[in-house]
Amino acid sequence: MKADAGRVIADLEELAALSSDERGAQRVAWTPTWQKARAWFAEKLAREVGVGVTRDGAGNLWASLPGTGAGSLVVGSHLDCVPCGGWLDGCLGVVAGIEVLRRVKARGAPPVTVHLVDWADEEGARFGRSLAGSAAAAGTLDSARELSHLKDRSGVALPDAMREHGVPIEGMADAATYFRARDVRAYLELHIEQGPVLEAMKKPCAVVLGTMGVERHLLSFTGQTAHSGAAPMHLRHDAFLAAAEFALACRAVAVERSGKAPRSRVVATCGVVKVEPNFVTAVPGAAEISVDLRALDAKVLAGMLAAAQRASKAAAKRHKVSVAWRPLMHIAPRPFDQTLMGFAARGIKEITGATAPQIPSGPLHDASEMAGIVPTAMVFAQSSPGISHTRLEDTPRPALDKSIRAFLLAVDHTLEHLGHEALPSSGRRC
Amino acid sequence: MKADAGRVIADLEELAALSSDERGAQRVAWTPTWQKARAWFAEKLAREVGVGVTRDGAGNLWASLPGTGAGSLVVGSHLDCVPCGGWLDGCLGVVAGIEVLRRVKARGAPPVTVHLVDWADEEGARFGRSLAGSAAAAGTLDSARELSHLKDRSGVALPDAMREHGVPIEGMADAATYFRARDVRAYLELHIEQGPVLEAMKKPCAVVLGTMGVERHLLSFTGQTAHSGAAPMHLRHDAFLAAAEFALACRAVAVERSGKAPRSRVVATCGVVKVEPNFVTAVPGAAEISVDLRALDAKVLAGMLAAAQRASKAAAKRHKVSVAWRPLMHIAPRPFDQTLMGFAARGIKEITGATAPQIPSGPLHDASEMAGIVPTAMVFAQSSPGISHTRLEDTPRPALDKSIRAFLLAVDHTLEHLGHEALPSSGRRC
Repeated sequence: MKADAGRVIADLEELAALSSDERGAQRVAWTPTWQKARAWFAEKLAREVGVGVTRDGAGNLWASLPGTGAGSLVVGSHLDCVPCGGWLDGCLGVVAGIEVLRRVKARGAPPVTVHLVDWADEEGARFGRSLAGSAAAAGTLDSARELSHLKDRSGVALPDAMREHGVPIEGMADAATYFRARDVRAYLELHIEQGPVLEAMKKPCAVVLGTMGVERHLLSFTGQTAHSGAAPMHLRHDAFLAAAEFALACRAVAVERSGKAPRSRVVATCGVVKVEPNFVTAVPGAAEISVDLRALDAKVLAGMLAAAQRASKAAAKRHKVSVAWRPLMHIAPRPFDQTLMGFAARGIKEITGATAPQIPSGPLHDASEMAGIVPTAMVFAQSSPGISHTRLEDTPRPALDKSIRAFLLAVDHTLEHLGHEALPSSGRRC
Repeated sequence: MKADAGRVIADLEELAALSSDERGAQRVAWTPTWQKARAWFAEKLAREVGVGVTRDGAGNLWASLPGTGAGSLVVGSHLDCVPCGGWLDGCLGVVAGIEVLRRVKARGAPPVTVHLVDWADEEGARFGRSLAGSAAAAGTLDSARELSHLKDRSGVALPDAMREHGVPIEGMADAATYFRARDVRAYLELHIEQGPVLEAMKKPCAVVLGTMGVERHLLSFTGQTAHSGAAPMHLRHDAFLAAAEFALACRAVAVERSGKAPRSRVVATCGVVKVEPNFVTAVPGAAEISVDLRALDAKVLAGMLAAAQRASKAAAKRHKVSVAWRPLMHIAPRPFDQTLMGFAARGIKEITGATAPQIPSGPLHDASEMAGIVPTAMVFAQSSPGISHTRLEDTPRPALDKSIRAFLLAVDHTLEHLGHEALPSSGRRC
């Protein structure tokens, strides 16, 4: 069956018109605009596919086409976005999923059940916890500990906002039970890259190797504040210079470990920098700096962390200051499933005529949570400009078209594979 | 006449008790506590020296002992301090000046007139413009342009605060006329070092070579904000890394140009650092950083600025960002008078038995303004710990004692010299 992206792009434009203003998309989770987008989603499924949506304990929306064999395939992503976000982030994968159901439905009963999921609150934009819905489904979220105390900027508590949307926080653990009962054999997600790699490679889409692991820490360098005129260079304890040296060392740590190929890149970022007392006439006595290290290979990531720790100690020693580390977050790398990646590569090659690029994802995705429990793969659509979480984020139409069609074919190949797997063993050996 | 520091230290303690709380000295200019300190100063002069005080147009307080010959010597410093400051910053020189008048008075009419001045608002702690009183006297202050718009944190305008203290801003220019009429031949100031140099040298006091010139600028590095996971290292435009490299280069600029001897030191400081968007997951797209370069030699200072500018461009190029400079302040170096420095050195040698160290002052002083118009010298008393603008700032009693006595002898030698100068030329050649 020929894959056509026209309906998907038309649906995406309809959704953008419904849920954006002049500053960008406004589908922030647990807000009325998000609810409006999800109502549109449910109505479209009812009208065009003839299926209803079910809400699990975490507020994820599920639509299903029952299959003839055991097990299921899940495709999905998230309708929610950051405030003033781009028109494709998250919703691309959900809206492409509507097309998946339309195609499957048109062919008659699929070999395995096909689920489309709209994960709730992937961004964590309002309350700060990202991947909440998919993590709940994966059973990796401790909602009482991680969510119950969260408040938005105006002081509204997350449990109250969830209850307003009919999702009592006490029921979140049910999402994992719900997921396990689906007997999921594969998870596929289409998402924009949100970075400049494919644009630089001039490629419309890629197979994602997995989501990188993250080591995120906050460092405090402590020296001695002094007068900019009175303190000679050799008697200073300049906390900022130590932080500056650390930041440059972290860059070197990532550059040295990044292979030439995009598939082997790793990254290191110092995004938060604060100095005290922050006066033009004061040698900084204290400097706080964050580091965010990412790599797809757990051993590489551990090596980067160790190198960064050594660099911080060397910088502290050279500038006669002390340094203390505080861990903020550790996320394990989530390499994706080789078999499913093969189907994604096949779909891309069929559409583009070229071997599919394979790149890791620096950002996390709902697929990261899925990869922990079921075979998972992702297709990335090129971002151009290669920036994220802004209304300027875009994908050129030809690349968007190709990415959607390649994803639809990847789903076809996966379904075919799962159909074979779902056959009785005698049948499989024919 | 033997120089005794006992009365000076007792007076300093009396003043500290009168104008400090548990957080430190609170003699902030244009506040009631400052007024109380100045009233104490006037009363002490009236009672112990029998002289009244005069206020010039800028609010500087003057007390004078008329001399037998033409011209005058000015000794002074400032009673005002930063909030929660140390017990000696500024007031040491003023209170030692009371002792100068006591000693001069005891000897009968001096050969030239001796003035003691308490400069108004040296610190600029409340409204932001330092050296206001001495700059007005030196004729280098444009009060309408520089002061009339200043407000404190609670919104009080400087002209209103000044008027409350009986000093209309419109009359500030009169301070220069007043000063010129004094026919000043020499200015001497005793001040604490406010830095760690003398402590590191184990010296109680030093001759000051002059106050360093200052080049102060604010740099804006502009790159491109990007997601910490999505942007590969080689496609980044990280504004903070450029700023970090610049800061380290500025340190090298100063270290390379600092001679081994304390007298030839220069300094470079990056005190203000701000990045945007300042998120743990964002490559900084913008970084603002201040640089404060100081040297006693104008050519060296110009060379440092040029080197820093080159370094900023190289850092910007390497990190693929742009850089813009905005000048904040330029102050010319103020080398002090060799003859007066000789008297200071002689006084120090007489008290300590050792050759006086000669060091530049990184911080500005009222003496910087005086050096522009009259022969000027300063004596520094050791600071220990070598920190400034905190209640922890101190001078060990033996060093304090020696510094005061050395300064009193330096005044004696200067007066003797000015007396010779003031004689008719026939007498001078005897």
